[in-house]
Amino acid sequence: MEKIAVRNIRRAAAQDITALESLGVATVHEAQGRKGLMRSYMRPIFTGARIAGSAITVLNHPGDNWMLHVAMELCQQGDVLVVGVSDEDEHGMFGDLLATLAMARGVRGLVIDAGVRDVRDLTEMGFPVWSKAIWSQGTVKATVGSVNVPIMCAGAAIKPGDVVIADDDGVCVVPRDAAGSVAQKGKARADNEESKRARLQAGELSLDIYDMREPLADAGLTYVDSVDEING
Amino acid sequence: MEKIAVRNIRRAAAQDITALESLGVATVHEAQGRKGLMRSYMRPIFTGARIAGSAITVLNHPGDNWMLHVAMELCQQGDVLVVGVSDEDEHGMFGDLLATLAMARGVRGLVIDAGVRDVRDLTEMGFPVWSKAIWSQGTVKATVGSVNVPIMCAGAAIKPGDVVIADDDGVCVVPRDAAGSVAQKGKARADNEESKRARLQAGELSLDIYDMREPLADAGLTYVDSVDEING
Amino acid sequence: MEKIAVRNIRRAAAQDITALESLGVATVHEAQGRKGLMRSYMRPIFTGARIAGSAITVLNHPGDNWMLHVAMELCQQGDVLVVGVSDEDEHGMFGDLLATLAMARGVRGLVIDAGVRDVRDLTEMGFPVWSKAIWSQGTVKATVGSVNVPIMCAGAAIKPGDVVIADDDGVCVVPRDAAGSVAQKGKARADNEESKRARLQAGELSLDIYDMREPLADAGLTYVDSVDEING
Amino acid sequence: MEKIAVRNIRRAAAQDITALESLGVATVHEAQGRKGLMRSYMRPIFTGARIAGSAITVLNHPGDNWMLHVAMELCQQGDVLVVGVSDEDEHGMFGDLLATLAMARGVRGLVIDAGVRDVRDLTEMGFPVWSKAIWSQGTVKATVGSVNVPIMCAGAAIKPGDVVIADDDGVCVVPRDAAGSVAQKGKARADNEESKRARLQAGELSLDIYDMREPLADAGLTYVDSVDEING
Amino acid sequence: MEKIAVRNIRRAAAQDITALESLGVATVHEAQGRKGLMRSYMRPIFTGARIAGSAITVLNHPGDNWMLHVAMELCQQGDVLVVGVSDEDEHGMFGDLLATLAMARGVRGLVIDAGVRDVRDLTEMGFPVWSKAIWSQGTVKATVGSVNVPIMCAGAAIKPGDVVIADDDGVCVVPRDAAGSVAQKGKARADNEESKRARLQAGELSLDIYDMREPLADAGLTYVDSVDEING
Amino acid sequence: MEKIAVRNIRRAAAQDITALESLGVATVHEAQGRKGLMRSYMRPIFTGARIAGSAITVLNHPGDNWMLHVAMELCQQGDVLVVGVSDEDEHGMFGDLLATLAMARGVRGLVIDAGVRDVRDLTEMGFPVWSKAIWSQGTVKATVGSVNVPIMCAGAAIKPGDVVIADDDGVCVVPRDAAGSVAQKGKARADNEESKRARLQAGELSLDIYDMREPLADAGLTYVDSVDEING
Repeated sequence: MEKIAVRNIRRAAAQDITALESLGVATVHEAQGRKGLMRSYMRPIFTGARIAGSAITVLNHPGDNWMLHVAMELCQQGDVLVVGVSDEDEHGMFGDLLATLAMARGVRGLVIDAGVRDVRDLTEMGFPVWSKAIWSQGTVKATVGSVNVPIMCAGAAIKPGDVVIADDDGVCVVPRDAAGSVAQKGKARADNEESKRARLQAGELSLDIYDMREPLADAGLTYVDSVDEING
Repeated sequence: MEKIAVRNIRRAAAQDITALESLGVATVHEAQGRKGLMRSYMRPIFTGARIAGSAITVLNHPGDNWMLHVAMELCQQGDVLVVGVSDEDEHGMFGDLLATLAMARGVRGLVIDAGVRDVRDLTEMGFPVWSKAIWSQGTVKATVGSVNVPIMCAGAAIKPGDVVIADDDGVCVVPRDAAGSVAQKGKARADNEESKRARLQAGELSLDIYDMREPLADAGLTYVDSVDEING
Repeated sequence: MEKIAVRNIRRAAAQDITALESLGVATVHEAQGRKGLMRSYMRPIFTGARIAGSAITVLNHPGDNWMLHVAMELCQQGDVLVVGVSDEDEHGMFGDLLATLAMARGVRGLVIDAGVRDVRDLTEMGFPVWSKAIWSQGTVKATVGSVNVPIMCAGAAIKPGDVVIADDDGVCVVPRDAAGSVAQKGKARADNEESKRARLQAGELSLDIYDMREPLADAGLTYVDSVDEING
Repeated sequence: MEKIAVRNIRRAAAQDITALESLGVATVHEAQGRKGLMRSYMRPIFTGARIAGSAITVLNHPGDNWMLHVAMELCQQGDVLVVGVSDEDEHGMFGDLLATLAMARGVRGLVIDAGVRDVRDLTEMGFPVWSKAIWSQGTVKATVGSVNVPIMCAGAAIKPGDVVIADDDGVCVVPRDAAGSVAQKGKARADNEESKRARLQAGELSLDIYDMREPLADAGLTYVDSVDEING
Repeated sequence: MEKIAVRNIRRAAAQDITALESLGVATVHEAQGRKGLMRSYMRPIFTGARIAGSAITVLNHPGDNWMLHVAMELCQQGDVLVVGVSDEDEHGMFGDLLATLAMARGVRGLVIDAGVRDVRDLTEMGFPVWSKAIWSQGTVKATVGSVNVPIMCAGAAIKPGDVVIADDDGVCVVPRDAAGSVAQKGKARADNEESKRARLQAGELSLDIYDMREPLADAGLTYVDSVDEING
Repeated sequence: MEKIAVRNIRRAAAQDITALESLGVATVHEAQGRKGLMRSYMRPIFTGARIAGSAITVLNHPGDNWMLHVAMELCQQGDVLVVGVSDEDEHGMFGDLLATLAMARGVRGLVIDAGVRDVRDLTEMGFPVWSKAIWSQGTVKATVGSVNVPIMCAGAAIKPGDVVIADDDGVCVVPRDAAGSVAQKGKARADNEESKRARLQAGELSLDIYDMREPLADAGLTYVDSVDEING
């Protein structure tokens, strides 16, 4: 494992981050061609939060949260901490004290491919966390990892400064360079969905709105009136 | 995989469905001899909902939600969509647009052995879903499956028109033919439990209410006053 | 499997139990040297509850809840039921009727390495449960196990009369003999954390509060200004 | 759980069973339209075995192997024991003594959605088993289940007398009525594959043998000469 | 985590260890009342090995194999290394170099609730290992654990000097004090099984050998001649 | 999902690939700084094989093996097929026919984050496969993916032309550019290990060879003569 902490990273434009936040995970994920989604086991500790921010990436040794302390100094207002571990891990690497510091420094939230604890306190403080587990198991500070290097987190590759979007649907990563174009595509997609929503609310079938009947027939779908027709 | 959509299915009597809904999953499951329960990984996206309805069954290819669009046309007021997949799958096959259409058509809820997305929207809309996962991963529309054929869903076999009951305890299936008799047995069971509840609330032991002391002794249970008695 | 029910157990002092409850799982776990934590799959059926009490231990055969009935008679006001099973199990061994009896007898809550059902009722009754699963699958009463013998529960060893603490972070076990000293250490730890919290709230870095900069350098951490410095 | 043992079952024709055995799991599964496959966690205790036979179905309570003893009497030469459990289970329900009896009665092998033990002995005896786990945990004989009723086993529905095929690829079930037609389709499929094999061995591409180039282009596949073409 | 290495431990009598080895895991586990079995995920890296020995216990931090080096010095001819970790872990903590040293010191084998690597070399060397995973992921030497303290390993509690038995069925622990009595009971059990084996080989039913027919009838088992009898 | 097949890729030097193959997974993984290892669930279908080759990367839709056919045409003598899927998947995407073609084209083996079937045939043919599962479940050819684009496979990022090394320990990826330097470092490491092996074989402790005694004492390790010293 490298042992490097990178002090300065490039961030996406604030307006693009704000735009991605308002779009949410599902739309952003679609808008960038279905890439960058973390695995489904990443769940929020409380429902209803939606955040986006520039990733401060942290690579920890299992059961060791030392690098989280290093990362705190390198965070700016609006950043999101994203923590990967070099093996599967569920240690409670983050609790109310680190959350207190993170909030003091303007960190938007935490995405961690490991465990978190003090979740009742974090919920009361309104500090959102997406984690693999809720577990109190304590950590050591013995092995140096890295901050702001490219990492893997819950199946997604992420580089420092990439934009992380998280909500009740999970967590998605947008490469820094792509933030603007994905935000734009996402808005177009959302607008398009809006126009569809009214028709669907009126009970119009998606089969008709999206012209699916012919492709379905071509692909071999057969309609029968009742199951009796099949069985004879 | 067959490629059939069955237009018309037989449904259970409305009063039986209503009765099963008011009994809930645990009682219905007991009343029909402990059959028909889906696996424990099927969890609601929000708590507090309890529904019952006639199953519109959908068999999808993994990562493909095409048949859900076909199924929408075949739903009636009060039906429940039940989705199986031919392999383990967590794709987000259902989101706010399909939920909008489902609500417009009177569908009561969704039971899906795969993933769901837009769960904050679905929660705000009050559209209940029981799923294996919450995941945004998008789907294709490339492989034809079936609607209203017998399927497997989360370990339970289900035929179109069977009654699906779902609440915070999970999901249970009652064969259409058995709906009436199970509802009746369930009511008897609930009444019986009600009479027991008062005695238990008064602190009477279940050991005595159910006459368990003698069978326990016969089966070999020994009481000792303290652990010292065993060790010393 | 032994077939013994032990009538009387020794309990920790009430004031120590109360102190442990107010400290919560994460602090207690730290205070006793990071032992006694159950696995992370033990989750509460509703959030916000925090309990501590003397363990009435129950060892069940899979799919058989007979010993829970035996245990009820041996509970006192303030006790916590702790249930282990001789294999991995998810049966719904406990529901609203047993909860009614448990509440009548003053039981504080249930910790069960298996399933629970009627969770909506239990939530309305305010009876807290930490379980491996929510599942309605019914149980038999055919095989005798034991009550108040040492058991394993979710990866933790527990003896009757040990103190169980449970909250949104999970479940922790403190040996009866150690309750007083752990409570004391926990309070010292909580006081210490309180003093740190103010400094962290003011934005002071944990790197400085805990004097980590020198050990990090000794362990090989290198700071670079930007990623360009590494690559080029 | 029902408590029934059915003495006599109908079996498929011996020649069809033999034919299915020689085809193997993968071919049989394809020949019957990709149905009837058990989940991938069912693994053989030793490699190289391939069997087919009429299913004697056994439904056990978790941790209880009583019905296996009942089933032994109802087996005939050439049958295969298929064991389901009413919950997920890993108990070692079967060992060298039951295998000795099974071999004495001409049973071909065991398929069990639970655990097995004495695997070194079973391997030496040449008695093939496909199981979910290898685990020594002992069982009780306390709860009556059923023999020769329809059961679920590792995700597949199976009725007594259905044909079970098992080899290194896993386990597949063919309904008794379909044994003849599936055997026929399987042979046709195997013959067809044989003719393809020679062409593939000669290095002819499947793209050409199966005329896939045009459908791929229609579905949107684009060839580029090198990755530079995409990026720059 | 404590940081202690205990130099000297008490061991069971050599003849009892030899006796337990020849009985094997399944018989030993039964003979001591079905206790002490590790979970089923503990698998041998090659089949056919059967060992027993006194446990040298090792408690590691995840991803850190430092204590294995400490343990080597404390091993005697005939001992077995048993490694627990403070969280779930799959790091490859042991490979061909440590195996070379272990063999030089007369260690019989390794039981590790984590990962192992160089398995082809270990297989060629004939050094048996039972592990949770095979994984090359390397470890650090940064956090001190303990040697020869009581640990948990794969769900079983084990103290230094307890006897560990391992074969193709898995791993079982016998407390040091109990080694003699369990060996005796195990031999009696094996003798008894031997006498049953001959009768079973001759096709005599276990139903009759163990007099199960009456208890089965009492417990509610009903025989029917065919499934037609049930259905109508 | 992109729909691109890249015809030509750059490959590492043949001598570097050969060198990496002879070093094996564990050494290569260490030599490149503990990166590039696939998850531990990737297991060989038979033991004893060790391969290295240039990766032809394939990105499939779940349950769809169409791109494998496309990839075959783009393989050269000595290449290794590496297959990722856009969701977790266990379909049997590869069997004896594709293996026949692969061998005809000189492909060294297959690494697939999904299922494989016909494993007895593949074993007899000597075609090595590392997969997530063995499962016969058949696939469709309906959704276009990509060949020779960067993919994720079993937790590792891999680009076309990177070197894949696979043996009984699992699978490791070395970036094309790094093949030479990693091969060199690996040889140095292997040589160094060789010199250590002789000393270890003679029973010299790793504690002494690696000078660990002082760092252990500094890190807090305390030796005691016996457990009595702690307790009493």
